[in-house]
This record gives sequence, structure tokens and C-alpha cells, in this order.
Amino acid sequence: MSFEPPLTNKADQDETDELRPKFNADGLIAAIAQDADTNEILMLAWMNEAALRATLETGRATYWSRSRQELWVKGETSGHTQEVVEVLVDCDQDAVLLKVRQTGAACHTGRKACFYRTIDPKTLRLSQS
Amino acid sequence: MSFEPPLTNKADQDETDELRPKFNADGLIAAIAQDADTNEILMLAWMNEAALRATLETGRATYWSRSRQELWVKGETSGHTQEVVEVLVDCDQDAVLLKVRQTGAACHTGRKACFYRTIDPKTLRLSQS
Repeated sequence: MSFEPPLTNKADQDETDELRPKFNADGLIAAIAQDADTNEILMLAWMNEAALRATLETGRATYWSRSRQELWVKGETSGHTQEVVEVLVDCDQDAVLLKVRQTGAACHTGRKACFYRTIDPKTLRLSQS
Repeated sequence: MSFEPPLTNKADQDETDELRPKFNADGLIAAIAQDADTNEILMLAWMNEAALRATLETGRATYWSRSRQELWVKGETSGHTQEVVEVLVDCDQDAVLLKVRQTGAACHTGRKACFYRTIDPKTLRLSQS
């Protein structure tokens, strides 16, 4: 079953109380995972329609792996699952925000979160925090 | 001047201390803006190379407007600027996280942040928080 399409009037899309996700040309929507307790941003990933539906139905964060081109139940292999506390959608509904309880590391490098390097604006070097 | 290209070895890209942003086929990278004080997620937008460079050079969040197809200095028209406190990059460098001090509303609807609706997983209705 497909989701309802986005409303053509932008202001209506901003204010509707209906879920009408706006997938991009590749059929994807951006998904930010944020730690529900600390508000730390854990990762940014992508969902297709099936991933968004699975996330809502199972309460377990499920993404679309662009590299593997397959549905990706987060932590299915690693055990590093994300229990979904809340899912929010942005104004034009082309991005979702998952508030999650993360088991273990969110990042495939073994770090808690993917955003572990800060850019020095002068030198453009990265430093790990 | 262009940024250095991403490293072909994925593990090297994850660990390098060089800024090597990975732009998508449209030349864009996802940018999350987070309130530096409250950690609230304000918005998700896009940057091309010029926008990322301008953000780093000016300390004022600058995005690429996909609808207008032009560089978008956040708040240039509305006054709702974002002073950049810190810019982080994720593991594979295809997303950046801006920690910002937001003046006024981040969302074009006049709300503080764009993620103002929660999805009810059972009914798929949105409720405003």
C-alpha cells in the first residue's frame, strides 16, 4: 500500500495532518536519527517507502541501504538496533526525524554517532571530538 | 577552488583528517541544522560546494535552494539567520551537521523548527507538538 501523495499546494502540505511523504527522484526520503534522551544526532540515512512503513509498523528503525540497494533493519547484523520512540516529519515532508533509543554504536565505525569530526573553517582539517 | 575528492577506500574516508565531502549526483550534500544550545533539530537542507564553502568562510549558514536553484544565505530575506558555531561531517562525509545560533524561526512557516509534526504509527495522522 502506497502513502498518499504530497499536496500540490505548498502551504497545504506544510499544514496537513495527513502523512504525505515526498520521496525524491530515487524514491527516497532523508531520515535523521537522534538520541531520544541526550538529543545527540546519531546518523543520517535514507528510507524508501517500504523502510518508512516498516519503521512505523515495527518500531525498529529501518532504512534503505543505497550501497547495498536493500532494506536495512538497523542492527540486524550488528545488534546495534534503534528502538523508535517518536517519528516526526518536516514542513514539506521530505525528511523525517527519528527519536530513538540506540543499543551500542550507531556508526558502522564503532563510534556512538557518525558526526565525530569537526571541520576547522580556516584549515579545512578535521579533528575528532 | 574545489574540495578534495572523497577517498576511494571507505575506511580511509571514515578516518581521514582531510575534508573530502561526497556530493551526490546533483552536486549536493545534506546539511542538518541543530540548535547549539538546546540540541533541537531545526531543519534539514542541502548544500552544494559553494554553499559549504560560504558557510565555512562566513560563519553564516548558507544552503542551496533546490526549488529556486540558487545559493541561499539563510535569513538574508527574513532576517532569520543562523550563526554557525561548529560544523561536523559524518563518517563517509556525505552529510554535515551545523550547530547554530538561530535568530527567529528556522522554518519558513514561522515556527522555530521544521519538525513540528509527529506521526501516529497506527493511524498515520500527524499531530502538531
